[in-house]
Amino acid sequence: MTEAIKVTVWNEGRHEKEHEEVAKVYPNGIHTVIADGLKAHGFTNVRTATLDEPEHGLTDAVLADTDVLLWWGHMAHGDVRDEIVDKVHARVLDGMGLIVLHSGHFSKIFKRLMGSTCNLKWREEGEKERVWVVESGHPIAQGLGEYFELENAEMYGERFDIPAPDTLVFVSWFEGGEVFRSGCCYHRGLGKIFYFRPGHETYPIYYNETVRKVLANAVGWAAPSGGPAPQFGNVKPIEKLGA
Amino acid sequence: MTEAIKVTVWNEGRHEKEHEEVAKVYPNGIHTVIADGLKAHGFTNVRTATLDEPEHGLTDAVLADTDVLLWWGHMAHGDVRDEIVDKVHARVLDGMGLIVLHSGHFSKIFKRLMGSTCNLKWREEGEKERVWVVESGHPIAQGLGEYFELENAEMYGERFDIPAPDTLVFVSWFEGGEVFRSGCCYHRGLGKIFYFRPGHETYPIYYNETVRKVLANAVGWAAPSGGPAPQFGNVKPIEKLGA
Amino acid sequence: MTEAIKVTVWNEGRHEKEHEEVAKVYPNGIHTVIADGLKAHGFTNVRTATLDEPEHGLTDAVLADTDVLLWWGHMAHGDVRDEIVDKVHARVLDGMGLIVLHSGHFSKIFKRLMGSTCNLKWREEGEKERVWVVESGHPIAQGLGEYFELENAEMYGERFDIPAPDTLVFVSWFEGGEVFRSGCCYHRGLGKIFYFRPGHETYPIYYNETVRKVLANAVGWAAPSGGPAPQFGNVKPIEKLGA
Amino acid sequence: MTEAIKVTVWNEGRHEKEHEEVAKVYPNGIHTVIADGLKAHGFTNVRTATLDEPEHGLTDAVLADTDVLLWWGHMAHGDVRDEIVDKVHARVLDGMGLIVLHSGHFSKIFKRLMGSTCNLKWREEGEKERVWVVESGHPIAQGLGEYFELENAEMYGERFDIPAPDTLVFVSWFEGGEVFRSGCCYHRGLGKIFYFRPGHETYPIYYNETVRKVLANAVGWAAPSGGPAPQFGNVKPIEKLGA
Repeated sequence: MTEAIKVTVWNEGRHEKEHEEVAKVYPNGIHTVIADGLKAHGFTNVRTATLDEPEHGLTDAVLADTDVLLWWGHMAHGDVRDEIVDKVHARVLDGMGLIVLHSGHFSKIFKRLMGSTCNLKWREEGEKERVWVVESGHPIAQGLGEYFELENAEMYGERFDIPAPDTLVFVSWFEGGEVFRSGCCYHRGLGKIFYFRPGHETYPIYYNETVRKVLANAVGWAAPSGGPAPQFGNVKPIEKLGA
Repeated sequence: MTEAIKVTVWNEGRHEKEHEEVAKVYPNGIHTVIADGLKAHGFTNVRTATLDEPEHGLTDAVLADTDVLLWWGHMAHGDVRDEIVDKVHARVLDGMGLIVLHSGHFSKIFKRLMGSTCNLKWREEGEKERVWVVESGHPIAQGLGEYFELENAEMYGERFDIPAPDTLVFVSWFEGGEVFRSGCCYHRGLGKIFYFRPGHETYPIYYNETVRKVLANAVGWAAPSGGPAPQFGNVKPIEKLGA
Repeated sequence: MTEAIKVTVWNEGRHEKEHEEVAKVYPNGIHTVIADGLKAHGFTNVRTATLDEPEHGLTDAVLADTDVLLWWGHMAHGDVRDEIVDKVHARVLDGMGLIVLHSGHFSKIFKRLMGSTCNLKWREEGEKERVWVVESGHPIAQGLGEYFELENAEMYGERFDIPAPDTLVFVSWFEGGEVFRSGCCYHRGLGKIFYFRPGHETYPIYYNETVRKVLANAVGWAAPSGGPAPQFGNVKPIEKLGA
Repeated sequence: MTEAIKVTVWNEGRHEKEHEEVAKVYPNGIHTVIADGLKAHGFTNVRTATLDEPEHGLTDAVLADTDVLLWWGHMAHGDVRDEIVDKVHARVLDGMGLIVLHSGHFSKIFKRLMGSTCNLKWREEGEKERVWVVESGHPIAQGLGEYFELENAEMYGERFDIPAPDTLVFVSWFEGGEVFRSGCCYHRGLGKIFYFRPGHETYPIYYNETVRKVLANAVGWAAPSGGPAPQFGNVKPIEKLGA
């Protein structure tokens, strides 16, 4: 089943070109490392796409052929064209899974889907993060321990201005005194959305084995379920009193 | 407390001018009848606003002075200017309550806040609707019976393409065979949102005593709670290991 | 994956022995027909258990070897021994999936897990039920249409005294004027629980192909996810300021 | 409105008699200090009740005359008689608010209402707790800052084995590396339940002004809403096709 899921990993891909320190950690781009992690967990159908490709690499053909899209962006959210956001939005509501990573909380697509500012507190001091599982029976927690640690992480702190998730899977603890809802599941339309906090452009988060395991679990969870596409609009009565 | 809540009832207000049959039911506009219903329940601070006023009647001053905004629109959603929608959106996230009525499901502000199409099935045959209370302990159900009936209603049917509500208060039954999540509560930012299905431009729904009771309850529930306004952005650590 | 899931179908099994009309519909017991339906959907590891077996057929060995338990009971809820209910309860919290069928709403195990009366309205007049999908993207809706119909069903009506489900998948419409939350998902401990309304001892509901499809989907969804078993009790600090 | 709410503060009341160090902090019992805090916030109708009174102080008359019950217990959960728990349970489902404090997570009434073990991690080292507001728009957050601190607290850590709350208001951070869902709202039957983590028998938590503010807010939120009492059982059809 894992093999059949078609995954597209999207990355802004600017940091890697512009900042040497990012290029050292992710010489071929964050997307390639995320894709490698998924392949290591048995996904064979994984492509990547980046901001500076035509249509940001998200053509109609690519979107139609994608079951789950992962989204990493940070410094260039504003450069993502609205008509591409429209298409991604429509595809999510149509059933495509979406996994929003770290600074993607401020991406156009996530804000569009959430309807709120998606704002938060942050601090970049390489402090320790401990990610706790709070919904142990959820498929995204499969194979994890009760918590996992990231030795050096950017802090994200509450209040995280999102709708309360349908299911809250992870809550993070930070050395400096904050907490954060780090793993948040949503249904929107026919699509499933997972926001996952860990990640950064210079901390090597996406090489972490537990982070990779979570992403693999999340892709499995977010893949389309094959439920009924609703018929909208004016409909005839199926039953009518006295008919 | 009821007296202190500042309410603004917004109405598109076009139907009443253009369709004689609407004008018969709501000669002074739907907004005036909704406002009268609230006044009958003890709200003394109720103003109205309509699409064709300057800034749609929703100036910065009006929005700043509004605790709860009720929204009725149908035929002219597209004429609501985006910059006004931006302001209403910001005010909801800042704490203003919003009550979206009936065909307001397709308003820009509701779609913006929900992040989904908000589409549904509909049929206009004056069929019977029975609105059932499914969360009996919720304040919006105060003083109601287990259900109430509308003899002639436009049908709205599932799939209603909304995020699952934080609290589902009402589910409607329709004569023709459909069901609908008719009373849906959401938190977004500091604001509380209530979607309420009943309503129509020619059926005299907003004269109905139970509907008026629900709207009064909803205004009480949606009024700002006075919780903490979050600080966003870069923050200092309050605790630091070894500090 | 389906093949690997170990399923136990539990049935009270009294109706079939005591009422000729039930025996006509389910000559070998409701459990055998439910089991057949699952086998038809590819589950190969399906056993059954009934009330009048030793330990109600739910020995420690059977429970330990069960991934998902389906529960049908009606006239003899009180005869289920509390120590067996204790064991089933513990197994659910430990990760075993539980699917509660129809009149099982009043079973000891469901009431224990819900913490409320689980009471409802009912009427037995063979009226039509239409089961609507309201969360189209949920795995339990896989392969279904927007709704399915049961021509002759016992009515169950709201207020259904349950905790609001984590996910509401189905809402039923009944000919006589009621609605019902018919497909309700819960997480409790490590276990997943699905309440599914359709079913009866004389209407041949469990021969219905769509009902069988739903049960197969539900078993797949409720199977244990393999998340972390929590450690409870007194723990050492992992971090300590100044340590 | 605050004045009209009838509050009963229940306390086990054993620690204070048996442990000198508890008696020093709460010489007249924890219940009296909690009651004082509510009175300081305008509640005038506040009584107390304790385990060693006849019927634990929770006679039918007292329960019938209580809008919101606060529950503090720790060392003697097992001494609470089941028939009293039955009555409290029934009253909650009938609409009485219930606020469960700290170690009350293991009380019979809370476990009964939750249906899970309600187990957790704990550590008693007087470490710092920071309680963060995560649902800023909820009435229980009224008048608070974004977080409040308790300098010396017993740690409670996740996994907290509860059903996901209907609304999660607070999440705690602990110095030693844990997080906890510290403010959890539930609807059960007609009743509203709030679990609030802070509290202890020797740390003077219930003298803390912010804690007192939270309890006052929680009582206001949990007071009965006056929704419809459901009719259960066999009902006549209100509509019947062709009738």
